[in-house]
Amino acid sequence: MSLEKIYNYIEVNSEKFIKNLVRLVKQPSVSAKNEGLKECAEIIERMMKEDGLSTKIIPEKEGNPVVFGEIKGKKAKKTLLFYDHYDVQPPEPLEEWICDPFSGVIRDGKIYGRGVSDNKGDFVSRLKAVQAFLETEGSLPVNIKFVVDGEEEIGSVHLLEVIKKNRELFSADAAIWEFGGTDRHGRPRIYLGLKGVLSVELRAKGASRDVHSSNAPLIPNPAWRLVWALNTLKNERDEILIEGFYDDVKKPSEEEIAYVRDIPFEEEEEKKDLGLKSFLHNLSGLDAVKTLLYQPACTINGLLTGYTASGSKTVLPNKALVKLDFRLVPEQRTRDIFYKLVKHLKTHGFEDIEVIQHGATEPTKTPLTDKFVQTVIKAAERIYGRKTVVYPTSPASGPMHLFRNILGYPVVSAGCAHEESRGHAPNENITVKGFIEGIKFMATIIKDFATV
Amino acid sequence: MSLEKIYNYIEVNSEKFIKNLVRLVKQPSVSAKNEGLKECAEIIERMMKEDGLSTKIIPEKEGNPVVFGEIKGKKAKKTLLFYDHYDVQPPEPLEEWICDPFSGVIRDGKIYGRGVSDNKGDFVSRLKAVQAFLETEGSLPVNIKFVVDGEEEIGSVHLLEVIKKNRELFSADAAIWEFGGTDRHGRPRIYLGLKGVLSVELRAKGASRDVHSSNAPLIPNPAWRLVWALNTLKNERDEILIEGFYDDVKKPSEEEIAYVRDIPFEEEEEKKDLGLKSFLHNLSGLDAVKTLLYQPACTINGLLTGYTASGSKTVLPNKALVKLDFRLVPEQRTRDIFYKLVKHLKTHGFEDIEVIQHGATEPTKTPLTDKFVQTVIKAAERIYGRKTVVYPTSPASGPMHLFRNILGYPVVSAGCAHEESRGHAPNENITVKGFIEGIKFMATIIKDFATV
Repeated sequence: MSLEKIYNYIEVNSEKFIKNLVRLVKQPSVSAKNEGLKECAEIIERMMKEDGLSTKIIPEKEGNPVVFGEIKGKKAKKTLLFYDHYDVQPPEPLEEWICDPFSGVIRDGKIYGRGVSDNKGDFVSRLKAVQAFLETEGSLPVNIKFVVDGEEEIGSVHLLEVIKKNRELFSADAAIWEFGGTDRHGRPRIYLGLKGVLSVELRAKGASRDVHSSNAPLIPNPAWRLVWALNTLKNERDEILIEGFYDDVKKPSEEEIAYVRDIPFEEEEEKKDLGLKSFLHNLSGLDAVKTLLYQPACTINGLLTGYTASGSKTVLPNKALVKLDFRLVPEQRTRDIFYKLVKHLKTHGFEDIEVIQHGATEPTKTPLTDKFVQTVIKAAERIYGRKTVVYPTSPASGPMHLFRNILGYPVVSAGCAHEESRGHAPNENITVKGFIEGIKFMATIIKDFATV
Repeated sequence: MSLEKIYNYIEVNSEKFIKNLVRLVKQPSVSAKNEGLKECAEIIERMMKEDGLSTKIIPEKEGNPVVFGEIKGKKAKKTLLFYDHYDVQPPEPLEEWICDPFSGVIRDGKIYGRGVSDNKGDFVSRLKAVQAFLETEGSLPVNIKFVVDGEEEIGSVHLLEVIKKNRELFSADAAIWEFGGTDRHGRPRIYLGLKGVLSVELRAKGASRDVHSSNAPLIPNPAWRLVWALNTLKNERDEILIEGFYDDVKKPSEEEIAYVRDIPFEEEEEKKDLGLKSFLHNLSGLDAVKTLLYQPACTINGLLTGYTASGSKTVLPNKALVKLDFRLVPEQRTRDIFYKLVKHLKTHGFEDIEVIQHGATEPTKTPLTDKFVQTVIKAAERIYGRKTVVYPTSPASGPMHLFRNILGYPVVSAGCAHEESRGHAPNENITVKGFIEGIKFMATIIKDFATV
């Protein structure tokens, strides 16, 4: 079995592969708006069928189906699972796009479209790596499974239930996660973990209706209640003050820090891009990267009360809300933090504030020492000819823990995006070159995983 | 000169007077929407002209005109000024009205319409008291002036300028302010002062655009900045923490407290109406009334940042705003409080927060010992046959200080509303009986003021 032969097949068929991708990008599949999901799931299934996989659409009770695909390898001993998703973010603001976000236009070596980077391009690159093996070798050296989620962009709310009911179907020896790519110097980047996220809403109530603010000396103001409650949650040094919040936070190992040192952080560009004179607490260099990766956070996502249009209105509002998210690191757990938050508010005299949970995703991490991690690193270096930038964990979140913690196998995130792919933003794109390299990268992982 | 003869004239002509009021109510004049102001000012002028007053429309540079009216008394030594306004609050929500808010429908002894209580009814009652003198006596015992504002409901933003340019025109020996009426037991209520109000907006800025909340460990969050800044302004005991905020706050005199003791406060009804178990800090009885009248306040009117629709969004917002009002008591001054606020924020490390002033009205008060106050109290008791409830000051605000402090004469607020007049709310109304009594009340003040 020669990888060169496979690479050659990929090169020769690249135009066909791009057409496959464009066909998928043209199908809108915006989970936040429940738009085109069923149609997109059917295209995903058909594409896998066309490449010889057996498929199954697993309906979720109240959500979008998971599309499952499988193909056995010849005398294969191991199973590699690919986690992807066919849903995409809403394309708005439309006026900032250089083209229709569901057109798959190719311009200056880039393929544009909502979801092309996150993560339809990755899905197609993986499927085409499988096809390349079948067409050149007639078989695969490992068993391959695809799990294509329909709710990743809205928190994969039903995936736990699907996994619990289909443990056997989802079993594997390792998984490649949905995202990754190259940095601005062409270095491949891979990710071994994700933070967790707990999204909550706090609601305070006052009188049964808004009143004139002249009544302020007598009537409770829910906005002040929220301000005082929030102030007890985090201080100006960004220390989270909830009792026991940091109990389960582990320090990164020396080995992890060695990798973190190699993560390029172009802080001046970052600050310039965001119009900032400095990062929080003047963080810089390694300290900034360590903080970004290993520090949990509590973020106000939104606040609303009373009159917020232009000018002023002498109103004393009767309700106020704040939306918060907590970013968690291993081994913190969302349920534990939720209870600690509720207890904290009670202890501090804010039992009148209602706490609503909107979403919860656990943090997770695959150790650097795992053999599969080293397999992916080597494959990346073969394809990209550069030292791999390894993120022992990432500031982002997702349902990786369901595979890593519940199903119990190593998970590494790697893909075909580039520095300017603009996921979730207007003019999302991947490069044609990056897409083709991505297919070769996945083929290399399949081959190497079979032999180590 | 017999008041009985005048009262009789008022009774006989009451239907005509009601028609005059309905005609005025039918003209929309919503200053917040710049709707019908010019037309209403013209009606006001025409009504005064029809009753023999000389008039002047004083245009304001960027605002709605003030309508001025004047009539000299026969050998009169004193001048009484009436302050009214022809602008009204927006009528919304329309679906809660039992009739068109600009119809002036009369039902079950009540005249309905936006502005009928606040304060078109008062204006007409005063004008018709003047007419009653002219028709029965042929002359007035005092000089009468009318100042009819067109911007009271939007903070009388240009009135100071108008007064400065027309000091002589606005000179008088005393003034009757725009509002007042009877309580649910038919006792007349008058008011000798108003709180000041300083409306500000605080704005915090972060990065040049919203970012994903996974960046929270590095990127400043303006929402947290605002929460921390607000927390330094007021504590949970509702003590305002701005250095020097209370410096100019005077304790009420023993004499004032004696009147405050007589102010009926139906706290159980109030709490029930607002769905509250208790007032702030369990305030009750005299303590509650004293706090309401004499304590300055800092109120959050509105807060806005980031994502506030349903569910959650992992966004780190790049701007946040809060709208606040400070209710001030004599001898506090809005400019002084504004500077103390700005200095406080700077001292506490929040120099990054922008402070914008939206409006400022000074507090003011006429002393209980003023002869004019006693004149109004006696007139009220003659008409309503009940002991007058005297508010040495009121929790509300308005441009009274321009007359009391700048022009320098006593000002008492008295009018023809009732407990359920619903000013600023749907189904605003006054009773026919209250309107006619109001005309008699004003006629009595005119007569008594001439003789004391």
